[in-house]
Amino acid sequence: MNTASTPAHVEPAVPPETESVGALVHLALAEDIGRGDLTTEATVRANSVAVAEIRQKQAGVVCGLPIVERVFQAFDDQVVVTPLVAEGSWGDQRVVARIAGPTRAILSGERTALNFLARLSGVATLSRQVAEAVAETQVRVLDTRKTTPGHRVLEKYAVRVGGCHNHRAGLDDGMLIKENHIRAAGGITAAVSAALRRTAPMQNVEVEVTTLAELDEAIAAGVQVVLFDNADLDSLRAAVARAAGRVRLEASGGVTLDTVQAVARTGVDYVSLGALTHSAGSLDFSLILL
Amino acid sequence: MNTASTPAHVEPAVPPETESVGALVHLALAEDIGRGDLTTEATVRANSVAVAEIRQKQAGVVCGLPIVERVFQAFDDQVVVTPLVAEGSWGDQRVVARIAGPTRAILSGERTALNFLARLSGVATLSRQVAEAVAETQVRVLDTRKTTPGHRVLEKYAVRVGGCHNHRAGLDDGMLIKENHIRAAGGITAAVSAALRRTAPMQNVEVEVTTLAELDEAIAAGVQVVLFDNADLDSLRAAVARAAGRVRLEASGGVTLDTVQAVARTGVDYVSLGALTHSAGSLDFSLILL
Amino acid sequence: MNTASTPAHVEPAVPPETESVGALVHLALAEDIGRGDLTTEATVRANSVAVAEIRQKQAGVVCGLPIVERVFQAFDDQVVVTPLVAEGSWGDQRVVARIAGPTRAILSGERTALNFLARLSGVATLSRQVAEAVAETQVRVLDTRKTTPGHRVLEKYAVRVGGCHNHRAGLDDGMLIKENHIRAAGGITAAVSAALRRTAPMQNVEVEVTTLAELDEAIAAGVQVVLFDNADLDSLRAAVARAAGRVRLEASGGVTLDTVQAVARTGVDYVSLGALTHSAGSLDFSLILL
Amino acid sequence: MNTASTPAHVEPAVPPETESVGALVHLALAEDIGRGDLTTEATVRANSVAVAEIRQKQAGVVCGLPIVERVFQAFDDQVVVTPLVAEGSWGDQRVVARIAGPTRAILSGERTALNFLARLSGVATLSRQVAEAVAETQVRVLDTRKTTPGHRVLEKYAVRVGGCHNHRAGLDDGMLIKENHIRAAGGITAAVSAALRRTAPMQNVEVEVTTLAELDEAIAAGVQVVLFDNADLDSLRAAVARAAGRVRLEASGGVTLDTVQAVARTGVDYVSLGALTHSAGSLDFSLILL
Amino acid sequence: MNTASTPAHVEPAVPPETESVGALVHLALAEDIGRGDLTTEATVRANSVAVAEIRQKQAGVVCGLPIVERVFQAFDDQVVVTPLVAEGSWGDQRVVARIAGPTRAILSGERTALNFLARLSGVATLSRQVAEAVAETQVRVLDTRKTTPGHRVLEKYAVRVGGCHNHRAGLDDGMLIKENHIRAAGGITAAVSAALRRTAPMQNVEVEVTTLAELDEAIAAGVQVVLFDNADLDSLRAAVARAAGRVRLEASGGVTLDTVQAVARTGVDYVSLGALTHSAGSLDFSLILL
Amino acid sequence: MNTASTPAHVEPAVPPETESVGALVHLALAEDIGRGDLTTEATVRANSVAVAEIRQKQAGVVCGLPIVERVFQAFDDQVVVTPLVAEGSWGDQRVVARIAGPTRAILSGERTALNFLARLSGVATLSRQVAEAVAETQVRVLDTRKTTPGHRVLEKYAVRVGGCHNHRAGLDDGMLIKENHIRAAGGITAAVSAALRRTAPMQNVEVEVTTLAELDEAIAAGVQVVLFDNADLDSLRAAVARAAGRVRLEASGGVTLDTVQAVARTGVDYVSLGALTHSAGSLDFSLILL
Repeated sequence: MNTASTPAHVEPAVPPETESVGALVHLALAEDIGRGDLTTEATVRANSVAVAEIRQKQAGVVCGLPIVERVFQAFDDQVVVTPLVAEGSWGDQRVVARIAGPTRAILSGERTALNFLARLSGVATLSRQVAEAVAETQVRVLDTRKTTPGHRVLEKYAVRVGGCHNHRAGLDDGMLIKENHIRAAGGITAAVSAALRRTAPMQNVEVEVTTLAELDEAIAAGVQVVLFDNADLDSLRAAVARAAGRVRLEASGGVTLDTVQAVARTGVDYVSLGALTHSAGSLDFSLILL
Repeated sequence: MNTASTPAHVEPAVPPETESVGALVHLALAEDIGRGDLTTEATVRANSVAVAEIRQKQAGVVCGLPIVERVFQAFDDQVVVTPLVAEGSWGDQRVVARIAGPTRAILSGERTALNFLARLSGVATLSRQVAEAVAETQVRVLDTRKTTPGHRVLEKYAVRVGGCHNHRAGLDDGMLIKENHIRAAGGITAAVSAALRRTAPMQNVEVEVTTLAELDEAIAAGVQVVLFDNADLDSLRAAVARAAGRVRLEASGGVTLDTVQAVARTGVDYVSLGALTHSAGSLDFSLILL
Repeated sequence: MNTASTPAHVEPAVPPETESVGALVHLALAEDIGRGDLTTEATVRANSVAVAEIRQKQAGVVCGLPIVERVFQAFDDQVVVTPLVAEGSWGDQRVVARIAGPTRAILSGERTALNFLARLSGVATLSRQVAEAVAETQVRVLDTRKTTPGHRVLEKYAVRVGGCHNHRAGLDDGMLIKENHIRAAGGITAAVSAALRRTAPMQNVEVEVTTLAELDEAIAAGVQVVLFDNADLDSLRAAVARAAGRVRLEASGGVTLDTVQAVARTGVDYVSLGALTHSAGSLDFSLILL
Repeated sequence: MNTASTPAHVEPAVPPETESVGALVHLALAEDIGRGDLTTEATVRANSVAVAEIRQKQAGVVCGLPIVERVFQAFDDQVVVTPLVAEGSWGDQRVVARIAGPTRAILSGERTALNFLARLSGVATLSRQVAEAVAETQVRVLDTRKTTPGHRVLEKYAVRVGGCHNHRAGLDDGMLIKENHIRAAGGITAAVSAALRRTAPMQNVEVEVTTLAELDEAIAAGVQVVLFDNADLDSLRAAVARAAGRVRLEASGGVTLDTVQAVARTGVDYVSLGALTHSAGSLDFSLILL
Repeated sequence: MNTASTPAHVEPAVPPETESVGALVHLALAEDIGRGDLTTEATVRANSVAVAEIRQKQAGVVCGLPIVERVFQAFDDQVVVTPLVAEGSWGDQRVVARIAGPTRAILSGERTALNFLARLSGVATLSRQVAEAVAETQVRVLDTRKTTPGHRVLEKYAVRVGGCHNHRAGLDDGMLIKENHIRAAGGITAAVSAALRRTAPMQNVEVEVTTLAELDEAIAAGVQVVLFDNADLDSLRAAVARAAGRVRLEASGGVTLDTVQAVARTGVDYVSLGALTHSAGSLDFSLILL
Repeated sequence: MNTASTPAHVEPAVPPETESVGALVHLALAEDIGRGDLTTEATVRANSVAVAEIRQKQAGVVCGLPIVERVFQAFDDQVVVTPLVAEGSWGDQRVVARIAGPTRAILSGERTALNFLARLSGVATLSRQVAEAVAETQVRVLDTRKTTPGHRVLEKYAVRVGGCHNHRAGLDDGMLIKENHIRAAGGITAAVSAALRRTAPMQNVEVEVTTLAELDEAIAAGVQVVLFDNADLDSLRAAVARAAGRVRLEASGGVTLDTVQAVARTGVDYVSLGALTHSAGSLDFSLILL
């Protein structure tokens, strides 16, 4: 597998600037630094300045350089972070950024910055691997809402940097009628009809089904997208045939890097993987004072 | 490996009640629910009530039931969460909690609650496996500061529930002089001496070394604990012999579930694993309306 | 015009429970009460309790009773608010709610509660009038993002209570490509194509046009919805004919209660009115201790 | 009516810098932008810069230019806002400010900035009209606490920019004994006497009355200001005569732009209008990329 | 001196319920408890419950019992605080409150609660002593803005509980023109005249002077209150004579418990003491588990 | 007593940069300025700039200059604060800092800045006096948790600036088993043993005792530090003899500047004084526009 290239459509991806990222960075710095960095205050003079490097020690996609900058800036805006490689590029054993500024701030912000970088790079790396596995199909690989609490926008950004796509950002971002909603509403038709009454011009409705009969009911009820949960490959192929383009189809449930290509080849429009965010590893980086 | 028993010392472990957990729960609910749960508002009547179950679908240690309760309560204090198994118990394919209350609140809080539960149970499960791997030694297994940003106290709680121990909670919780500090301070002796001047009665000083000569210098400088970073087993055994009880020794760097027992048998006092928190998997749970 | 009836589809409308409403209520109470209600503290004994009534003094739709309760509860959870009429009902010169609890809390929360109620009832009343003006057409009347800063979810709720529909909730809730975006992107086709690359399964793309040629370009580019800005009735009719069902059409720009019916009759799918929120009046209510 | 001139005493008026304005701007940006501006991120390159103009499209007093700057700066401090007309000046069909900076930031902040500007200009315009209506009397026109929740300091600023005066800013800013307080305290004399015991050197006490007998009681009790609620012109003239300068008189209740001059001519010291803030219109502005 | 009695006018004094008190309690608990009470979590079982007493160990006025309750409730709302003596009563060597609830919560909240109680009781005790020193004069003793940062409303509450009065609560609570303002405005007359243009009906203007000539200028300019800073007794008596009731007079600057009576006897209307808040001692209390 | 010199080990002391200081500064500015500085806005033009001096008017250690800067910067980052003397230096009747910037910001921030400076300088001055009183012994003087709520890190910083040392920062910063814990745990041995099970490598356990028998029990249980509460000098000397270096000893309870030297001479390792923070005076400073 050649994972070295950055897909063209990643280019416009930018680090999220939303409120919640600021709140998370704040929380992360607060929990690590608390009342102050005792070791650094005791061993490093207040007026000392330094240059440091962040080194990538494991193969994968680097993701999170803008967050690294945000962490250091939130701690002390005298710290300057200079990325040395492209966000989203694949690499190994390389220097990915240079940090310059007050030594104390560099050392105090180090762990929080690296913790973000390691996790986001892990998500982007897995996403890149999955994206390449389906590169020869037309399918769009989607993430889910199975993200780390508080990290939703960051992890969904890492998914895009990796080359996959985002499903809805939250419960307010589109209607996806799942098994529990159907049960509470008294059936697919009732649930879909209630949902359609509230859609805005830019919204579609998606419903989760498990049988072809439910697929028929969903199509008749007027949805635009149908999610097949935990279906085997034969069922997916049958669903694609039955849908015949009248709705778009999403396959979901237990898909992994190993199985995603086979699922993609069934002809579904979307495959979603919770694993992109809940089971991605962590990439190893270290910070060293020069 | 028999991982079914709960170590006795886990009993007093309780879910953290600190400020930061509340802030994280708030952030997590906000990012998922945003302006409101469109699907649930459209398909479930406001006055509907329900009972649901959370089912564990994968073998491991359940951890996070108090957080599940906190999430639902933060969203709607009419929701009642009843744990059906002990926090910290090992199990599989079982119902771990029952949720009763307004149907809308149950469905809107579901994903956030499960995301916490899955992640913490993953950390506790790995910690349990590691704890059992070293059960016949005297070593204490420690976590590190390589935690998910914003989740520090929760993940350290999961480590305790799993049966391991916590290293310092943050940069304000004890002095650990690492390579970068030594470089900035101009040597081990200078750094340690500066640190000792600021210690409170209840604090020790720990220093990171890589050679026996540095170990000697650290002992002479007066530290109480020495961390050997990335040392092989022979080096660790040599360090244990040289220290001869004058300081306590911690082995760190790249230790995994597979290698922890061998490291523990070198005679060090502590082994720390970043992997406990940065590489733990996620346990699968689902919520189903009855 | 008979505005006394509550449209059936208003029923499931519920007051928003999102974070931002809590923050706004907090801000509103803080700005009015500041360091404490001097008059009430000086003239009313701390242990005094009372019952009060909120009276509607002007004809219109009452909207905001759940917010009234939330304001009083946020100030003092001993205050009990009992609605006496249905949220969304049309009325005049009537008692809409009874308030019971500590006299001080009732008097201190009065103005903040009434300020919310008056404003939301004004929006709901205008929305009801507009909804009834187009009741015999198939058009959906939409609000816009021209809402009072900080009051977005509340005002959009009032629009629904009044019987109209919501357009997108914010910039993250669907893509609407406007004139400035087209200019920045270098044309309709370029902008739409960039947008379509980022859509999730549940999202459509809408684009703003002013001529039939632009409408053709938008349809060719693949959008699902087209907004005609500031078009006269003839242009709208021509656009409906040209679109021929291939895209949905939204008319916008300067539409008022007086003109909405004529616009609706052109055959467009949606009409949006900024006036629903930025030019709605305020309904008069008062609170009187019994 | 010539409303083109800016009254001299408006000059020192400056935009409020208080905490609550920052919180409201934050809330407003958060509710509009949420997880990010999808359209702009998809259609505008991250490194694009632009210049835009804000155009006033309706006759009135421009008010809120400093808030426009604050909104853009809060979103991205690289945006530079240059006012081209004086805050508080009357105009129509003109460019009131130029905005330069990152194109994305300009487009993402546009709606929030304009929503503030439109509303505050509406309040200032009505206030200017009212101020000019009473310009030949000695009366001071006051606002009330019937402001938009969360917008108190901003709207009271707009009232001053328009040329009227501010009544108390909140419940902690002076004692105004109203009908409900009198009822709870057991009469005017009891209420006033309790209030006077708590006044600081810089505070007066005001009481609301509806009859000349109550006016007599209030004066005897020692208040400095008396508010006549919903009184007709004859009653106000009678009250002015009876007070004979022993207390200052405020007329309030249902006064509008049409009736304010007649009320002012009764000889009262103050007239207060809730309408200044709760019934002001919204002035139309637009932002256009050059 | 007999300080055992509670002045009648203290009765209606109640603990402030404003936003800022909640924020301070939150901050205080957060700084003390941080990531959790290690000792209590290690030594006390989670399900243990207990009753404890707060004992006053030094003679003085107890003040802050409602804050004690608020602290415990903020930490754990299962804790019940029962005051056993009247807020504002003078005593010594007595039990002032009983605390019942979870043992852990009682021990974790103890120090924060006592720190508030000790400080507020110190302020109330000094205020009581000062109030009694001037009891036979007509003077009102006032506090100043020299309060502990963040504790303004609490300390001003303690001043009232002690029997003195509050000067303005903050810079937004009345205009007091001091030496620096006069210098910036170009003289007393200019400053006062600018101030009078902005006063609301319930506001007076106060100006600081140091000579009789300045007093004359202030009176001519139209102020209602004049503050004499650091004047000796003879100067104060001369000022009282010159003012002759045309303005009220406040003496300020370096007044202490020892000198307040002499100052009061000069005939001024008010004496203000920064010492009430910045130099009050701390009263000793302890909490003991029964 | 010569208190003019700054102890060498004070040098690295720096003002805390933690989250909680920012929150307290925010709270302090908010409570003083509220909706705006009425006097300054009325009497000083918006575009006026000025230079001011802060003058120390009482002998003592100046402490808090970095907080003064932080207060002004938080209010308006155009204000420049230039310290003219060293933080921690002893002086009297001198100019300690120069402030330059917008006149309004200088006057509005003045009181909050001075309130911090006066209080911290009071704590540092008393700490300096105590440190000098024991300068010829080996004892370390410690503060306690009896600090002003919300001011913990600032006051502990002032203690260090004065030349004393900090005990634990909060309940999460080391285990100190006090009488109530012992009671709840069922004895010293039980409590200590539970505590030792939870200690991290860098933590010691301290226990409070009142008799030699308890000291024996504590030593046998394995603690590293023992606190003698309210012991007389003979008891302390006996404890020192009995401990014989096996544990470190801390004397606490009612120690003052007058008695600290005698306690120090008993040979204990630490003396802790609540008085350092709860009974320090306030140093007098004033700000004058040049």
